[in-house]
Amino acid sequence: MTTLGDVARGDEWIVEAFGIAAERLADRAVLASLVDRMVHELALRPVGAGQWHVFPPPGGITGMLLLAESHLTVHTFPEHGSLCLNLFCCTPRAAWPFAERLAELLGAERVTVRHLERAYARQALASR
Amino acid sequence: MTTLGDVARGDEWIVEAFGIAAERLADRAVLASLVDRMVHELALRPVGAGQWHVFPPPGGITGMLLLAESHLTVHTFPEHGSLCLNLFCCTPRAAWPFAERLAELLGAERVTVRHLERAYARQALASR
Repeated sequence: MTTLGDVARGDEWIVEAFGIAAERLADRAVLASLVDRMVHELALRPVGAGQWHVFPPPGGITGMLLLAESHLTVHTFPEHGSLCLNLFCCTPRAAWPFAERLAELLGAERVTVRHLERAYARQALASR
Repeated sequence: MTTLGDVARGDEWIVEAFGIAAERLADRAVLASLVDRMVHELALRPVGAGQWHVFPPPGGITGMLLLAESHLTVHTFPEHGSLCLNLFCCTPRAAWPFAERLAELLGAERVTVRHLERAYARQALASR
């Protein structure tokens, strides 16, 4: 049970990564490893199995994982050498080192990260 | 097949809604109706069935739907009378009238919408 104060806000990271080899972006096992690494290092708690969809060639992949903390999604674009990732945690937490990990795991040459605060407390109604 | 120009960007809407009755936020059928309405009115193309999780009382619900366009997620917080929604479409499109629809379908008193552009073209690597 959350209280109605500071706890009723979360963090979302909106991530784009570029310069990744198309083969890696079309490889579900590679992406599953990325998700597993995030779950492990951030101590995320999946609720249910991940859901994956592989699109026709060039073979972009979409993956989603429901979390007790909210959700994790990833979409790949092999034809662009890029991916888009969202991590939403409904309680505050430290950021993952997205740029370092996406370089290490996928060979990303460039990573952009935007952080959004997501407030969902009743008080937010009055203060906005 | 997308080209490497203007098409290689998408739109994401980050939505919070407040002032909703707890009973509606704990009712999966109500939320499924919201998702169905969005899919219909925005001509979204689901790939696979929606995935839902109902948390212990107060009974927050998480729902996710994979789309050919990317994804749709919703998380409810009955204890706060609020929900958080994401809609990510990897090709540009007009916004949904979130405030009007969330008032109509859920009785939301206040809705905040943030719009983010998501660029995933190869050129984005050089231009950033």
